[in-house]
Amino acid sequence: MEVIKYPVREDWPSLAKRPALDVTTLFDTVRTVLDEVRKEGDVAVKWYEEKFDKVTLPELQVSEAEIQEAHALVSEELKQVIRNAKDNIEKFHASQRFTGQKVETTPGVTCWQKAVAIEKVGLYIPGGTAPLFSTVLMLAVPAHIAGCKEIVLCTPPNKEGKVHPAILFAAETAGVSKIFKAGGIQAIAAMAYGTESVPKVYKIFGPGNQYVTAAKQLVSLKDVAIDMPAGPSEVEVIADGTATPAFIAADFLSQAEHGVDSQAMLVTTSEEIVTPVMEAIRQQLSVLPRKEITEKALEHSRIIVLVTEQEVIDFTNMYAPEHLIIQTANYVYIAAQIENAGSVFMGPYTPESAGDYASGTNHTLPTNGYAKAYSGVNLDSFIKKITFQEITAEGIKNLGGTIQVMAGNEQLDAHRNAVTTRLNIL
Amino acid sequence: MEVIKYPVREDWPSLAKRPALDVTTLFDTVRTVLDEVRKEGDVAVKWYEEKFDKVTLPELQVSEAEIQEAHALVSEELKQVIRNAKDNIEKFHASQRFTGQKVETTPGVTCWQKAVAIEKVGLYIPGGTAPLFSTVLMLAVPAHIAGCKEIVLCTPPNKEGKVHPAILFAAETAGVSKIFKAGGIQAIAAMAYGTESVPKVYKIFGPGNQYVTAAKQLVSLKDVAIDMPAGPSEVEVIADGTATPAFIAADFLSQAEHGVDSQAMLVTTSEEIVTPVMEAIRQQLSVLPRKEITEKALEHSRIIVLVTEQEVIDFTNMYAPEHLIIQTANYVYIAAQIENAGSVFMGPYTPESAGDYASGTNHTLPTNGYAKAYSGVNLDSFIKKITFQEITAEGIKNLGGTIQVMAGNEQLDAHRNAVTTRLNIL
Repeated sequence: MEVIKYPVREDWPSLAKRPALDVTTLFDTVRTVLDEVRKEGDVAVKWYEEKFDKVTLPELQVSEAEIQEAHALVSEELKQVIRNAKDNIEKFHASQRFTGQKVETTPGVTCWQKAVAIEKVGLYIPGGTAPLFSTVLMLAVPAHIAGCKEIVLCTPPNKEGKVHPAILFAAETAGVSKIFKAGGIQAIAAMAYGTESVPKVYKIFGPGNQYVTAAKQLVSLKDVAIDMPAGPSEVEVIADGTATPAFIAADFLSQAEHGVDSQAMLVTTSEEIVTPVMEAIRQQLSVLPRKEITEKALEHSRIIVLVTEQEVIDFTNMYAPEHLIIQTANYVYIAAQIENAGSVFMGPYTPESAGDYASGTNHTLPTNGYAKAYSGVNLDSFIKKITFQEITAEGIKNLGGTIQVMAGNEQLDAHRNAVTTRLNIL
Repeated sequence: MEVIKYPVREDWPSLAKRPALDVTTLFDTVRTVLDEVRKEGDVAVKWYEEKFDKVTLPELQVSEAEIQEAHALVSEELKQVIRNAKDNIEKFHASQRFTGQKVETTPGVTCWQKAVAIEKVGLYIPGGTAPLFSTVLMLAVPAHIAGCKEIVLCTPPNKEGKVHPAILFAAETAGVSKIFKAGGIQAIAAMAYGTESVPKVYKIFGPGNQYVTAAKQLVSLKDVAIDMPAGPSEVEVIADGTATPAFIAADFLSQAEHGVDSQAMLVTTSEEIVTPVMEAIRQQLSVLPRKEITEKALEHSRIIVLVTEQEVIDFTNMYAPEHLIIQTANYVYIAAQIENAGSVFMGPYTPESAGDYASGTNHTLPTNGYAKAYSGVNLDSFIKKITFQEITAEGIKNLGGTIQVMAGNEQLDAHRNAVTTRLNIL
């Protein structure tokens, strides 16, 4: 962990650098798998499951019996909290529903927008030692509320060919239509192109390793939309002298444990909190099971001391963190100055893990500075807005002249004729 | 123009095929230009302007004097209609402003979204014989309303090194900050990476030829967001026996004149209108100045006769047209069934050219079936929504247990500790 005190502005960009990986180097490998799944369908998916996940699958789709079995295997306690988190995510995302208003821009010319759900969406949930059922909720709950008709989920099975019961329970609770045992590039390909058993979807969501990221990027070039470009997870904590060092340390470490390429940043004007925070990190780290991963992530994490609060705000908007935690006396004021961030956590009792799991906000957020242009996943991600317009005879009389002159000046005579033909009979 | 009567459903997908080009074959060429502009900045942009646009540019930026000069060169009539169109576009896009509401998902846990403008955006306006000032309005007006601080516009100059005065007038009217003489791949590169004179932006908008499209796709992989993937323009007209053949023909031709790869489709249950429509197309086409282009586009345009209205609706939602014109007696009913389209034009007096120019809706729309997952450009395209949350001591007591159990089950102990550390002192 680097501590940088009072850097000059010219050095800020290098301090805002991420340990991001360029996945374009993987494109050739990824393209091979994509092409085979497009051509061979289920056969290719099964073949790659055997190759990469070391499992022979008679069927890709998770059966009704397996889903029922999962019910019995998940503890009541876990079921209860999954339902609680689902309710909060549902409440917050339901509040984001859009109703377009009709606008008469010129007498007789009425325009409006209508939100319509994307009919078929695909959710990718990575495998690994721990079951990421929280990501199932974060993607499937808004898809369901938005009204997506087909919600497809792909996740790699374990070596016994099983999907973790908590994933299955969360998927069923959130309204997933079909679950498939498929991971990595082959899963993305299956959802992008469709196979005999996996439906083709129109938009793919979800995190994954660098191969999944590369596959999503490649299919997004022409076959399907994706949620957003992905990079390693990151947090910035803004703190002042009133902050509790143990809270800052805990938030730092909860980011760092995600993976060796995670990044945590503390940005402060209070030089005096640096030592207590570092001490708290040392103490808390020593008892963590994921200590090794966490220590690696801390290597490219930073504590940056700046002179003024305005510098802290400027640095933050330049860094554009995925997660921003503000633990200062005036956190409401600072939050109001934030222009680039994925999700902002305000005050001493608002840890990032609240938003990661259960407060209701989404945890699929723009990393790698993408918060300058992208929103995190929200209800909008599962709909598109179609514009409608209706023009009366009166309306085309009022607006027709404008259209005719504009079309004429753009030398598009047929565009002009489409108006003239109508005005001629009125 | 092909006429297909009563095709079976299995044949529909082939009837919905577009003459779309695969731009990935251009990636190697495009990457070379991108890389040079990234390394060499203005020098490379000027070099490629000399090579591709045959013009030597001492300065890339359009000067204040040139903008003033444009004022004198644009007719009062054109100025007036540009202002009229701008007012309508402004009215409609201003109605799309978003205000997030605070939601208390659990007592003491409050979440909300806030819309913040993307600070720097880049608009690309293609060159050619006709000045596309309408596209300037469609991109710059919502960017300005959204509150984007820097609105950069790139467009190729003519061989005298000048930008068309109507482009400059529209840009100034709509609130563009800086205009640069640069076209093609080098313009996209300049905005994606920044040069000595062109600011780096966070999102790039606008149409272009296949090289521009390929360049936008490549830079979108890691450097900058883009509006949407682009393809040739297209229209579908739904008509019944009550429709006026001359209107259908005019709408057909106004789409076809865009370019040789444009596509127009008429989908109807009324076999009796086919001959009158074809006759009207023949008549109107004969006097069009862009007759040759238009005829080429008609080669892959189609008239499809279906049995039932439900088939017409199903076909339309499968085709997912960029523009959809509905000229039937029950156009309100049919419009309500549309799930996949970019922009819908309802009734006899609502030609597509109204939305192309002046009614207020945006004309930058998803082509190539992308309407299944993408919206057209709208106010959302220029903002991102940041989520905020504030949890009180009471709130973390209420929600903490849920977070702890979920984090524990995902084996993320530091995530759990971030809650435990806080609960311990409460």
